[in-house]
Amino acid sequence: MGSTYGKIFNISTFGESHGKAIGVVIDGCPAGVEFNEEFIQAELDKRKPGQSRITTQRKEADSVDVLSGVFEGKTTGTPIALVINNQDQRSKDYGHIADKFRPSHADYTYAAKYGNRDYRGGGRSSARETAARVAAGAIAKTILRDMGIEIAAYVKQVGRLKLDKSYSELDLSTRYDNAVRCPDAAMAQEMFDYIDDTRKKGDSIGGVITCVASGVPVGWGEPVFDKLHAELGKAMLSINAVKGFEYGSGFDGVELYGSEHNDEFYTNEAGEVKTKTNHAGGILGGISSGEDIYFNVAFKPTATIMKDQDSVNAAGEAVTVSGKGRHDPCVLPRAVPIVEAMAALVLVDFYLRAKADK
Amino acid sequence: MGSTYGKIFNISTFGESHGKAIGVVIDGCPAGVEFNEEFIQAELDKRKPGQSRITTQRKEADSVDVLSGVFEGKTTGTPIALVINNQDQRSKDYGHIADKFRPSHADYTYAAKYGNRDYRGGGRSSARETAARVAAGAIAKTILRDMGIEIAAYVKQVGRLKLDKSYSELDLSTRYDNAVRCPDAAMAQEMFDYIDDTRKKGDSIGGVITCVASGVPVGWGEPVFDKLHAELGKAMLSINAVKGFEYGSGFDGVELYGSEHNDEFYTNEAGEVKTKTNHAGGILGGISSGEDIYFNVAFKPTATIMKDQDSVNAAGEAVTVSGKGRHDPCVLPRAVPIVEAMAALVLVDFYLRAKADK
Amino acid sequence: MGSTYGKIFNISTFGESHGKAIGVVIDGCPAGVEFNEEFIQAELDKRKPGQSRITTQRKEADSVDVLSGVFEGKTTGTPIALVINNQDQRSKDYGHIADKFRPSHADYTYAAKYGNRDYRGGGRSSARETAARVAAGAIAKTILRDMGIEIAAYVKQVGRLKLDKSYSELDLSTRYDNAVRCPDAAMAQEMFDYIDDTRKKGDSIGGVITCVASGVPVGWGEPVFDKLHAELGKAMLSINAVKGFEYGSGFDGVELYGSEHNDEFYTNEAGEVKTKTNHAGGILGGISSGEDIYFNVAFKPTATIMKDQDSVNAAGEAVTVSGKGRHDPCVLPRAVPIVEAMAALVLVDFYLRAKADK
Amino acid sequence: MGSTYGKIFNISTFGESHGKAIGVVIDGCPAGVEFNEEFIQAELDKRKPGQSRITTQRKEADSVDVLSGVFEGKTTGTPIALVINNQDQRSKDYGHIADKFRPSHADYTYAAKYGNRDYRGGGRSSARETAARVAAGAIAKTILRDMGIEIAAYVKQVGRLKLDKSYSELDLSTRYDNAVRCPDAAMAQEMFDYIDDTRKKGDSIGGVITCVASGVPVGWGEPVFDKLHAELGKAMLSINAVKGFEYGSGFDGVELYGSEHNDEFYTNEAGEVKTKTNHAGGILGGISSGEDIYFNVAFKPTATIMKDQDSVNAAGEAVTVSGKGRHDPCVLPRAVPIVEAMAALVLVDFYLRAKADK
Repeated sequence: MGSTYGKIFNISTFGESHGKAIGVVIDGCPAGVEFNEEFIQAELDKRKPGQSRITTQRKEADSVDVLSGVFEGKTTGTPIALVINNQDQRSKDYGHIADKFRPSHADYTYAAKYGNRDYRGGGRSSARETAARVAAGAIAKTILRDMGIEIAAYVKQVGRLKLDKSYSELDLSTRYDNAVRCPDAAMAQEMFDYIDDTRKKGDSIGGVITCVASGVPVGWGEPVFDKLHAELGKAMLSINAVKGFEYGSGFDGVELYGSEHNDEFYTNEAGEVKTKTNHAGGILGGISSGEDIYFNVAFKPTATIMKDQDSVNAAGEAVTVSGKGRHDPCVLPRAVPIVEAMAALVLVDFYLRAKADK
Repeated sequence: MGSTYGKIFNISTFGESHGKAIGVVIDGCPAGVEFNEEFIQAELDKRKPGQSRITTQRKEADSVDVLSGVFEGKTTGTPIALVINNQDQRSKDYGHIADKFRPSHADYTYAAKYGNRDYRGGGRSSARETAARVAAGAIAKTILRDMGIEIAAYVKQVGRLKLDKSYSELDLSTRYDNAVRCPDAAMAQEMFDYIDDTRKKGDSIGGVITCVASGVPVGWGEPVFDKLHAELGKAMLSINAVKGFEYGSGFDGVELYGSEHNDEFYTNEAGEVKTKTNHAGGILGGISSGEDIYFNVAFKPTATIMKDQDSVNAAGEAVTVSGKGRHDPCVLPRAVPIVEAMAALVLVDFYLRAKADK
Repeated sequence: MGSTYGKIFNISTFGESHGKAIGVVIDGCPAGVEFNEEFIQAELDKRKPGQSRITTQRKEADSVDVLSGVFEGKTTGTPIALVINNQDQRSKDYGHIADKFRPSHADYTYAAKYGNRDYRGGGRSSARETAARVAAGAIAKTILRDMGIEIAAYVKQVGRLKLDKSYSELDLSTRYDNAVRCPDAAMAQEMFDYIDDTRKKGDSIGGVITCVASGVPVGWGEPVFDKLHAELGKAMLSINAVKGFEYGSGFDGVELYGSEHNDEFYTNEAGEVKTKTNHAGGILGGISSGEDIYFNVAFKPTATIMKDQDSVNAAGEAVTVSGKGRHDPCVLPRAVPIVEAMAALVLVDFYLRAKADK
Repeated sequence: MGSTYGKIFNISTFGESHGKAIGVVIDGCPAGVEFNEEFIQAELDKRKPGQSRITTQRKEADSVDVLSGVFEGKTTGTPIALVINNQDQRSKDYGHIADKFRPSHADYTYAAKYGNRDYRGGGRSSARETAARVAAGAIAKTILRDMGIEIAAYVKQVGRLKLDKSYSELDLSTRYDNAVRCPDAAMAQEMFDYIDDTRKKGDSIGGVITCVASGVPVGWGEPVFDKLHAELGKAMLSINAVKGFEYGSGFDGVELYGSEHNDEFYTNEAGEVKTKTNHAGGILGGISSGEDIYFNVAFKPTATIMKDQDSVNAAGEAVTVSGKGRHDPCVLPRAVPIVEAMAALVLVDFYLRAKADK
């Protein structure tokens, strides 16, 4: 259980890190959407390993195969199956941990929950699964883009290096211009060096990604449990290594008084209701307000490091886990397209739900 | 849509702030659970208004009426309907805002989404809805308690006042001993004065609640989308005024290296697999590890303040919204039992889901 | 589990035969629907007991109380809670079967499944639960009626008495003019006498209800599992005492050749695509075709009879179950509004789902 | 929407008749189930085309490819993806109906619903989709078989040829011994000749399949909407060409008096509660009683026939649809494993749901 997401735009992902393939079935995509396979591939390319020396050197083409749901260049309204074959599956790299629980990985909990586990590369718990999300998210992005909605994420913080600018001061269209995915060139270079230095030490480091969705009309999201930010939070927290989510003023906003924090309404020259400030992060009562939606996502340092660590094996005996295999010293650069994909999946689902409002 | 939660222990809440009643139907509660109406009432009493001068003076007995699903003192496995009649419904207090959009409230988004709205006290968007969650949560708590699981939340921060102690240094059983719900008596007094001062100024203030679930066995939570912390995050973010969620090391953890952050495993004297540290917050790969689960929830300052604010009305005209009615200058004290209830609802749902694991 | 229905127009019913109340929460009703409490009550009156001597003499006003979701005469888009208090709860009538399993009732299976059961009048397994469905169905009917869709069910067969006319030969608007709910006055009288005779013998009898939905536009229903007729079938089979469902040509159609059974298309004078015949029952590939939707529902004879029957008790000992209490000698007259309600609930859910098609 | 089934053992099928592949993702299969690829293939072979001259001559190996969810011969608890590549996709056979609506097919309703459609061989509405269900059903069957539950379906009626024996008088283990899948050799020969004669005439014929599930323990199924027979009915009605469903005494039972129809309980020598008769079809109040579950499924004559038929095209103009392509003159022989698969999928889902009962 747990590998499906979305009430209407429903996705079901499958696949292990070192199995035959990973993929996704989308049930609930509207008919008539222009299907752009190149765009899906381009999104996957942003996430794929081996793009620079600060990402894992695993070699995966991550090329997508479309099995169903598309006819004559458009979606048909029936399930879209996308499959990505695994290629560089050096399973033997993982023989040494078949019986050991890697610290801060899911080895132990999967083994306890299911009684057995696919230990090769983390199996289902591997971040490789997120490629399927990026593929599905590309379709969601297409639908949203046709409505004038843009989603842009970027790396705001790596370790103690923090970009102290608001998203509105940045040119987000440049976010993929560097390997770090930070739209501030100087900071990007600093972060790159920081990550590379961490890599050389065989260690890993965390960080924060900021994501902005602009152009979302008023009225998306549901009251009570399925609030727009609650689903965004769930979606982000479901990404591997995520430890926190905040939107709008977030954790810092708790220190403000209501008289400082409240966003006063006014009517702009176009006759639209707007707010003077946007501490709300574009969401009021769980429903989009028409302002920019923005949020932060915290990622822990990658659990895989190139150092010896104490642990236990399946028999409970003390063992040493040595660092082997390929890994990302910092997951954030490759997580940027994943955050965007999940945001798109949440938004398109609420777009379709909102059709039944009145 | 959006007022139901839970895959197996499924709750469906209803009711507006100033309608006839609020309530909840629980479909999926196991049969044979001892039904303790006094405990449900006790939980509601912790949330109810008017408990001290730092909470709203609205008078509600919040007494629960059990309509179904219980027979001879035990649950029958069929839906449990709990209803709480509204009593102190001074709807006339709200006539002045019938046509106005209160800043940072859901008035505007509800009106845009649905075309009409129940403006009395926020209608469905009112935090009064959470009483239904507390009632349902009390049943979930009962089920968990019978398994040795305890859930304890407390106020960790109010505005800039922050309790700089780990939960493990506190006696959480004292958390309800003061009006603030902070288990550190000295800090509780400081916070009380701070909130009371804010109240006198007609303003409001936010804060942070920490919640700890101890005794959760290894294996609860699902891979990929329905990770335990993702559902906890969604559940917390669905509470009124919440702006952020983090678990384990959270946002601070992003500054650590992997070699500092990883939690090494060992086997204790009882032969149980444990971790030396718990930056993971008791969850690995979305599945409980057997360690304490702990997380923080950020609440913004209450939107209702006793000051004049600029806004617009339904016609888009500039208006002034004046502060009237009763309100909480700080929602945190009353939010503590809500956080506990939502945590219990998430956990009991995963407990029931885990039964199908193998 | 199992007391909720509908993907978007989601209903959750609750309540036992002899508990405090029964009711329903509707989450997903669109905003802006005119709320007609009199119409809901009128629908409930068609189902309520004691309408003639061929129905149970239990006295229930079945008056509905609206707790939420309606403001100034219209639905608000938030959950609508409807409660019907139980009045005539002669629980003592059931003391004699507290420990016995009545033949062909759900006593035994509930006891085995849940370990305990509310034995008073069947508890949750009582057809009393269907009053909640009728209340919810009345709202669904209102929505459909505003779109020009009419749903009409009637008794087609009682025991061996069968009305050998097509629905198109009958004036369905007269179906509630007699106690039997058969729109053929002569047959209705025969059926009445038959049922009354059965009642006098202390026995019960089954029958068949036909239901017709006219005015449904082309395009409702989903491919594969959620076919329109599959959901109609599920909904009908979920009604107490139902043993079979067929639509269009149904079981008789299996004897036809394809060349006889196929419905050829033509374009009518209004330019609409129509079929010359309608063996399909208005549904092609699980999706409405624009033709009348019609189906039959088979009901078994009521399990409660006024005769001694062999059975066992909870200890497995042989006992005699004697007929006591009040019962319907034939459930069909009161089941007519239930069939209509369930059809309306299925259709309105597909109406809302279809909004996301393209 | 609509291509997913199951609350816990959740399947999501995809694929069109003449697309690249069809397949299924199963999310919620328990871990530790022995994975028998040969058995899945054997089940698919029972359904595949070209088995005799009374089934379509389309050539499909229908060989299954396992992409995920299995490790070292056992299920891991994570999603199982099964893919069957399409091979004999003579799409050009369908060029002649690209713009025409075939009578009693889903061409017209899909076109109206989605605005476009994959016209090749019916696209998603093709019965080819059911191969994916058979593959998933094979896993469900494995789980049930390990619990001593056997599911056996067979052809009971073809056109007017009806096998007038109860399932208990037949040796169901012989059901796959002939091309018709009727466990009575003499009747099987008659049916074969009947179907073959129909084929020669270029026509098609319907029929009835009976299915029996033995060994199901008491307590599976849910009250109210998700009754065991309601889900069985939905599952069967979701199979292509199905027009009706009845269980236990079914439509014939409506003519019996309650005193004839009720199944009296007794305790057998093994101390088990049993019923003297089984008009209930093994289900009481929607919950399995421990007796055999049996039901009938009615199939209409195949819509594709080798005769000219009147119809209209997308422009609404009158056209003639000529019979071309390959088809089954009677779907029943190949539908037998599909009925069994769907029954297994329903039962295994309720098995897993029942784990949360108490």
